[in-house]
Amino acid sequence: LQNFADRLDLSIQEKKSCLVVGLDPVLDRLPPEVLYEVGVPNAGEPGWTARAASATGIFLRGVIDAVAPHAVAVKPNAGFFERFGAVGWDCLRQVSEYAAKQGLLVICDAKRGDIGNTAAAYAEGLLGDTPDTLGPVTDAVTLNPYLGEDSLRPFIDRCSAGKGLFLLVRTSNPSAADLQELDVGGEPLYLKVARLVEKWGAGSRGERGLNPVGVVVGATAPEQAAAVRKELPEAFFLVPGYGAQGGGAQELAPFFIEGGRGVVVNSSRSVLYAFDGKEGDWREAVGEAASSAREDLETVRTQSG
Amino acid sequence: LQNFADRLDLSIQEKKSCLVVGLDPVLDRLPPEVLYEVGVPNAGEPGWTARAASATGIFLRGVIDAVAPHAVAVKPNAGFFERFGAVGWDCLRQVSEYAAKQGLLVICDAKRGDIGNTAAAYAEGLLGDTPDTLGPVTDAVTLNPYLGEDSLRPFIDRCSAGKGLFLLVRTSNPSAADLQELDVGGEPLYLKVARLVEKWGAGSRGERGLNPVGVVVGATAPEQAAAVRKELPEAFFLVPGYGAQGGGAQELAPFFIEGGRGVVVNSSRSVLYAFDGKEGDWREAVGEAASSAREDLETVRTQSG
Repeated sequence: LQNFADRLDLSIQEKKSCLVVGLDPVLDRLPPEVLYEVGVPNAGEPGWTARAASATGIFLRGVIDAVAPHAVAVKPNAGFFERFGAVGWDCLRQVSEYAAKQGLLVICDAKRGDIGNTAAAYAEGLLGDTPDTLGPVTDAVTLNPYLGEDSLRPFIDRCSAGKGLFLLVRTSNPSAADLQELDVGGEPLYLKVARLVEKWGAGSRGERGLNPVGVVVGATAPEQAAAVRKELPEAFFLVPGYGAQGGGAQELAPFFIEGGRGVVVNSSRSVLYAFDGKEGDWREAVGEAASSAREDLETVRTQSG
Repeated sequence: LQNFADRLDLSIQEKKSCLVVGLDPVLDRLPPEVLYEVGVPNAGEPGWTARAASATGIFLRGVIDAVAPHAVAVKPNAGFFERFGAVGWDCLRQVSEYAAKQGLLVICDAKRGDIGNTAAAYAEGLLGDTPDTLGPVTDAVTLNPYLGEDSLRPFIDRCSAGKGLFLLVRTSNPSAADLQELDVGGEPLYLKVARLVEKWGAGSRGERGLNPVGVVVGATAPEQAAAVRKELPEAFFLVPGYGAQGGGAQELAPFFIEGGRGVVVNSSRSVLYAFDGKEGDWREAVGEAASSAREDLETVRTQSG
C-alpha cells in the first residue's frame, strides 16, 4: 500500500511518460466495426443500455491495450458510464480492472463532493476495498471542493492506504471563471482553494516528496498554473485540456516542479478517436496518437522545472 | 411535460406538505428483520453488494409506502447506492421508479458538476429519456456550481422538458464556510452564486411564478436564507439539515415566499430510522415520524411569507 504520489512518480520515471488517457466514450464516435460486432440498436429501444455498455467495454479494452505502453494512467470519466445506468457502472468497473491489469494506474474522474456520512459512502464506494465496487481497482479520484474540508476528509484519510485525490482548483472550461476567478481579498478564488488544499494535504506526503492530495488545473489556464504551483510546491497536478481542448504542450512548463516532476497530463478525445477519418486498424491509430502525445509531453517535461 | 416548479408547487398545495424524505440508506441501521430476510453476509464476502442492495431496496420500498401520504418527494442520495457498485445503481433506479408510482416526486441528490460533453452525458443519464436509466423516473437533481454556467447548461435546458435542478448555494455541513463564506467584494461567495443562479434560471419560470432552477440552502444557516431569498425571489429552495442535523422548523420561516410557497424541506435520518429503539412495526414508526415532521413544517409554512 505504497503512497499514491510515490507510485505515480515512479511510474512516470519508469515509463518516461506523464500521459494520462481520458476514457470519455461517446457511443456514436466508436469504430463502426465495434458497433457492428455488438449490434447496438437505436437509442431508446429496449436493450440499448446493455448493448451500448458492451460496445463501450470492447472499445475501451482495445484502447487500453493500445495506450498501455505509452501512458501512466487512464482516467475514466464516471459520467459517460453513468449515462448507461447500472450496466454502465459495471462497465466502468470492468474497464478499470482491465486497465489496472495492464499496469496502468486508474484515476476515476468522478468530481464528487458531498457531506457527512454521504462523503464516507462515496469514499468507500470509490476508494474502499469492497469487492464488486470501484474501490479495489481505482487508485485516485477527482473531487469538487465547494463543500469544504469535512466533505473531503473521508477521501484524504484514504491516502494512508495508498489512494490519491485530485481536487478541482482551476478547470479548463470556458465558464470556469464564473466562480473560480471571483476576487477574494485581492486574489482569485482558485488560489484560495489551492491554499486550502495545501492545508488539507499536510501529512499525506509520500517518501519521494510529492503529495497524493493533488489538484486539477486546466492546460488552458497556463498563466494560473504558476500561481497555483507556488501555493502547492509538492502536490501532484492533473492537467486536462491538452489536445482537443486547445492547450499545447509548450504551455505546460509552469506546471512542473524540479526535474520535470509532479505533473500528469490528460488527453481524451485526440487519443480515443485518433482513428477518425483514417484507414487501417483503429487500435493502431489510437496507439500512435498516444505515442506521439507522450513524446510531445516528454519534450516539455524533460526541459521543465 | 408540465414545468417542474408548477408540479412541485401543486403537489405541496394538494398534499398540504413541503416534506421531502431523504433516502440515505446505511446498511447497519436497517431493521434487523429486513437484514434477516435477505441474509446479508459480512462486508467484503462474495455477494455482499448484491445482498446489501437487495436489503436496501426492500427497506426503501417500505419507507416509501409509509411516507407517501405525508411527503411530496423523496430524495435518494446517489452516494449511498453507488457504494454498492452496479447493483446499487439498479437499486437506485428501482426505488426511484417505485416512489414515482406512489405519487412522489423524485429528486436525485447527485451533486454532479462536470464540463462539456461530460455534463451532457450526466444530464442525459440523470434527466433524459433512456429506458433503464434514472432519467425517466427522476424529476430533479442537485448540482454543484463550482465549474460555472456551461457545466449546468445541459441540465437547465431540460427544465423545458419538465425537469428541475437544485444548485448547491449554502450547504448545511460544518465546513461549508471554507469556500462558501469567503468574502467576495464585501459579500460572501454563496450570495454571488445565488445571483448567478438567478441569471442562469432566467426564462425557466413556470406558470405559477416559481422557478425550477432552484437552490440548496441548509436549515442550519437561517440567517443566510433571507439574504439568498432576496436574490432569488422565485426559485424553489431545497432545505436540508432539518431534523437530525439540528435545524428546527421555527428557523425555516425566512426561506418561504408569500403564501408559504417556494420551499421543500428534507428530513432523512429522523424519518428513515424512526423505528430505532422502538417496539412494533418499523413501517409504522417511519410513517408516524413523517406525519409529525409534516405537521411541524406545516405550522411554519402556513404562517410564513
